[in-house]
This record gives sequence, structure tokens and C-alpha cells, in this order.
Amino acid sequence: MKRLSILGSTGSIGRNTIEVVKNHQDKFKVTGLAARNNIELLESQIQIFKPKVVAVYDESAAAILKKKDLRVEVLTGESGLVEVATLNDADVVVSAIVGSDGLVPTHEAIKAGKDIALANKEVLVMAGGLIIAEAVKRGVRLIPVDSEHSAIFQCLNGRDMDEVHKIVLTASGGAFLRKDASELETVTPAQALKHPTWAMGKKITIDSATLMNKGLEVIEACWLFDMPPEKVDVVLHPQSIIHSMVKFIDGSVIAHMSVPDMKGPISYALSYPQRFQDVLPALNLPEVRELTFEEPDLRRFPSLSLAYDAIRTGGTMPCVLNAANEIAVGIFLEGKISFTAIPRVISRTMSEHKVLSSDTIEVVLDASEWAKVKAVEIAEELRINN
Amino acid sequence: MKRLSILGSTGSIGRNTIEVVKNHQDKFKVTGLAARNNIELLESQIQIFKPKVVAVYDESAAAILKKKDLRVEVLTGESGLVEVATLNDADVVVSAIVGSDGLVPTHEAIKAGKDIALANKEVLVMAGGLIIAEAVKRGVRLIPVDSEHSAIFQCLNGRDMDEVHKIVLTASGGAFLRKDASELETVTPAQALKHPTWAMGKKITIDSATLMNKGLEVIEACWLFDMPPEKVDVVLHPQSIIHSMVKFIDGSVIAHMSVPDMKGPISYALSYPQRFQDVLPALNLPEVRELTFEEPDLRRFPSLSLAYDAIRTGGTMPCVLNAANEIAVGIFLEGKISFTAIPRVISRTMSEHKVLSSDTIEVVLDASEWAKVKAVEIAEELRINN
Repeated sequence: MKRLSILGSTGSIGRNTIEVVKNHQDKFKVTGLAARNNIELLESQIQIFKPKVVAVYDESAAAILKKKDLRVEVLTGESGLVEVATLNDADVVVSAIVGSDGLVPTHEAIKAGKDIALANKEVLVMAGGLIIAEAVKRGVRLIPVDSEHSAIFQCLNGRDMDEVHKIVLTASGGAFLRKDASELETVTPAQALKHPTWAMGKKITIDSATLMNKGLEVIEACWLFDMPPEKVDVVLHPQSIIHSMVKFIDGSVIAHMSVPDMKGPISYALSYPQRFQDVLPALNLPEVRELTFEEPDLRRFPSLSLAYDAIRTGGTMPCVLNAANEIAVGIFLEGKISFTAIPRVISRTMSEHKVLSSDTIEVVLDASEWAKVKAVEIAEELRINN
Repeated sequence: MKRLSILGSTGSIGRNTIEVVKNHQDKFKVTGLAARNNIELLESQIQIFKPKVVAVYDESAAAILKKKDLRVEVLTGESGLVEVATLNDADVVVSAIVGSDGLVPTHEAIKAGKDIALANKEVLVMAGGLIIAEAVKRGVRLIPVDSEHSAIFQCLNGRDMDEVHKIVLTASGGAFLRKDASELETVTPAQALKHPTWAMGKKITIDSATLMNKGLEVIEACWLFDMPPEKVDVVLHPQSIIHSMVKFIDGSVIAHMSVPDMKGPISYALSYPQRFQDVLPALNLPEVRELTFEEPDLRRFPSLSLAYDAIRTGGTMPCVLNAANEIAVGIFLEGKISFTAIPRVISRTMSEHKVLSSDTIEVVLDASEWAKVKAVEIAEELRINN
């Protein structure tokens, strides 16, 4: 019986995790749950799994939940998240908090020796070196939940890394694959939120439309699989059936495919090294009929180039990229800057950053804070109708 | 240093094997070569590798080679093939003789404890049960050289077979994928020999056009991977980039891809468990642009159904299927029966066969001989302008 703490249990990944766990109650016990503020959904999860502790990041929401007398300890704030992430009786922590807020709780979970099912890519984007070093030191397993990294993980499957030539991440291309540069100037948040193949949260759906999601995944892949950025390629594959590939030195390629559904990689991260039965509907390739591939257009989608620049630069730069992107996406979703301003905000924030070595979580968090403030300033200048 | 005996060194697989070995002379020593009758090419191979022994199946060709005084022992006939297959100083036997002639030498090589790089699919089609039992008994490894089985072998890579849901063999569809049933009546051998993606020998190219090649591969896969026929599927994939796939119980699919070139699987069979560098050109999927898939049409290509029927029936039936097919293809190549008569010859031969349990190689060889005689009779009745 694996004992789980689920950080971000009410988000898109969290809800899918809950589904998988519900279908395998003989194999899992949920010891802790953490959410931002969706206490209604959290309450139903508490009633199903009866964890000992939950954390609600938002203090006023936590206060409301506490009054409900659900026979569960209700914690709040970052310290609450950290407590759920480090519970003594948890074996595996599902790290599914969106964005940079996931960093500290995940880092603390690793320090506490918990295996991590890692859905939050910002953890490795912001502080990959620190996180990997800590995981190695504690003998902790980082099992990827992102579909692309889960695919790579499944393709590698204990193979000799010396025989790996390249990793190839596939990208759907997002909502605007067929929009030309001038059309991109005026697309709306509502348009950007229509993802062609994956049902996901808002932030990641916008990141898919800019290709920044793929950029963050490139950085994550570099850390997870110990690959230099020049050995991590991106190819557009609009059908999202091939989730990623590994190219070997002899010219062989091993690819992972399935119908696009996050229950697949979530389930694998939880069942690893086994597999559960019938997680996803069978893939019927004659029904799919065709899988297509194209090179990403870095001119229309410069965010992907920025991500490569950031990981090549190293130190605090990927963290700054990520923070500036979080701010820019948020302001775009508010309708205050254009879609094409997102990479401009990131690029200008990066160019004003003095890179430091990411020696401690504090350095990383400071860089992230600096970048957020700077990005807000820059976004203000690029504001629509300014 | 692996010591190799190469059976069928002048055929299509044999020549590719020689190429791979030439590029890695530090890793291999060739101890024996065997060919049917192409002594010109064999002579050049002898001069490169200086084996101690060669076998030339054809006696008159062997006599000519003997006179050349090449400082090599020249054997002949089936006993010559067997001697090369069982040389004391060979570690691995490359079994690349075309057709049923490969059975006895390969069986003897296994009995002599040699690991087998298996390119001859008839060995398992004719006598899978015997061969697998012998290989298990002797602790011999059967490493597939067929691109599809090599792909499956690479996809499995030590995974738990209990988690395998299905094996999916891909098929190019051969020369006549887009011909309708009436057109198939009148296609010529020359048309059938134009394979869209693979450069191979004549027999296998015709087998690709009838889909019998895939049928034989289904039977081979059942034996190699210990799968019942209902768990081995076939999907048409005209680009021949995905060489085969494994479907797992959770809905995940692992696929093996490369540019279509037999040097890939041959090289892997020889280098296994390692990989050689730069065997094949890199696969560039954006250049390939699209991979397509469709269900095989069993009405136009009934040979595939016959193969499933044969393995489901078991015993000597797959052997009879194979022998009748060899005869029918030979007579088609002579222009004496139509393309669509090939499956008719096989089907009628099968329906007249009294199935026996394949307990010994003799039973298998007798069934094969019976089927050849019977198939010639039936083909005579179906002769064009009869």
C-alpha cells in the first residue's frame, strides 16, 4: 500500500490523480491533501479519503473549511503546504501545485526523503540543479507526470544512457499553430484557451499556445534525464499521439504513444514500476489515420527559443524566464497585454537580469521575485491602449 | 570478440550482415560462411574474412570454388551447411538462408548451443515449438533480425510480459496496396517485385505483395514472444517508419522507428545488448511529414488470414502453409499462375492436409515435402491458359 500526499489536489492534475487513486483504493492510502482555495472540491475529497491533514493555501478559505468540523487537521499558508509535503506517513508526494508555489513544498518533500510524482515542471525549471542534487543525496525517485517526460521515462526504461543520442519532445503546437504572425497580434485569451488535444489548466494552456510550455519541458528534460539542451529537440505533432521519443546512437527511435489523456502518465507515475490495467482506451491507429510532424516556427513562437537561451545560460536564468512568463501570462489572461507581448516581456526581463549561480533555494526565490516585479514593470509599458 | 558463422552470406540479409561486420572488424571474427551458389561473391567474402570453412549448397558451384585454392575448406550440400552452422569456434550463427532450407542447419546450430541471429522466419514458422523448446533447453538466445521482430524485441527490452496487452506488427502493404481485386488478377511478377520501401530478395518481396510475409511474421512473433495469435495484430503503415509496436495493459504503446534499412536490425542483432554508433541515417520526422495507418484488407489479401488460420490450427499446419506458399510464389515468378492464385494454392493445400503434431524435425520436413508436392499439383490445375 503506497501512502500519498497530493499537493494541488483540486487542480487538473490533482483531480485526475484522485480518479486514479479512487480506482485503486486497495493500493493507495491518501494521507494528506493540499489545495489553493477550492474548499468545496477539497471537502468532497476529504470525505472520500479521510486524510489526517489537509492544507489550504488561502487563509480565508482555510478558515471556512476549519469551521466545518470534518475530523481533519486544516493547515494554511506555505507552511501548511510544507507540512502536508513532509508528513511522516507519506511515501510518495504528488507535486501538482501550479507554478512557482510548488518549489518550496516539493524541495522540503525531497529533503524528507519522499519519492516525488512530479507534475509541477517549475520545480526543475527554477532550481533543477539543487533539486536533482538533493534527490540523489536522499535516494529519492523523481517520477515524471508530464506526458512528455513520462513518455521519455517509459522509452528509456533502464536503457544505457550512453546509447541515447537525443530526446525528442513532441508538441501539439497549441491553439495557434496555423495562425500567421500578424494574426497572433490580436488573438484573445478565450481563443488561446482552446487547446486542440489536451484538457488542462489555464496557465499551461496559454503556455502551450506560446510554445513556452515546451520550452519549460525542454529545461525539465535536461535536468530529469541529465541531457545538455542541444540533445533535447522539439518536434510539432498536432495529434498528440506520440508523447515523446528517444533517439539512440544507432539511428533507432523508441516512441511512446497513447490517446492523449493525463490519466495515463499520472497512473504510470503512481503504479511504477508496474502498470495498471485499462487506464486509457486502446489506441487505434487506423482510426487516427495519420500522425504528422513539422519543425516548430521559432519566429512566430519565440518563447521556445527563450527557454533554450535560458537553460544554456544556466544559473538563475531559467528561474527568471519562468517567473517572467507567469506574470506575462497572467496579464495576458486579464486582457491587458497582447499574446505577442508575452515573449517580449520575458525576453526583456531576461536581458535585464544579472545571472547568479543557483546555490540555494533563497537565491532562486529572490531571482523569481525580482523577475516578477521586473516583468510587471515591463508589461505595464507594453500594455494595450497604453 | 564475437565469432560468427553466416548462413546465407550472399543473399540480401547476408550482404548487409557482411557490411556491418566489415565496419566493426575489431568486434567480430567470421569463422564460417555458407551460400547457395553465388561463388563469385562468396570468394570476395572469403578474401576479406579468411574463414576456415565455407559451405556451398550447390555441388557443381562448390566444385568450381574448390579448384580455386583459396586456403579454405569448401563443404557442400545440407551436411556442409550444418557443419558451418555448428563450427566449434563460432559463438553466433546468423541464420539468413532463405526459405525452408534454413530449418535443419539452424536447428543443428541451436543443438550445438550457438546463439542465433535469426533472419530466416521459416525456421519458426515450420517448427516453432521444437525450436523454442530446444533453445530454452540449451540456454540459446534467439535474436530476431526481421525488422518487425527486432522492433518488438527493442520495445520489450526486459519489460514484464504480463503487462503486454498486444503486439502490433506493421506492414508496408507491399506493391499492390492500392490495387483493387480485379486488377490483382492480372498483375505481373515484375510489378510484384517493386517494393515501395524495402529492398529485399525476390521471395520476400512477393510475400510482401500478398501480405503472406506479414502472416509468416505473425506466426514467428507468436513463437518468439510467446503470444497467442489473437494478441498479435497487423496494421498497414505504408511509410515503413514504425517497424512495430507493443501495446501495454494500461493503454500505453511503445513503438520502434527508424529509416527503413535492414542494416538497423542486423546491426542490433549483432551488437546486442549494446548498440553501434551511426548505423542508420538519423530519422527526421518533419521531413517524413506523415505516418499513416490503415487496417489490412483481408478480402484482397487472403494470405494473411490463411496464416492466422494455420497458427490457430497449429501442429504441422503452419509448415504446410509455408511450403505451399514457397511453391506458389515460385510458380507465380515463372509466370505460370496469377498473383491471386497464390493464396488459392495455399488454401487448397491446407484444406487437404491431415494435421499432425510437430514432435520431430522429421515430421515437419515430411509435412513440408507433402505440401510442396500437393501445391505443385494444385498449381498445375490453376495454371494460366490451362
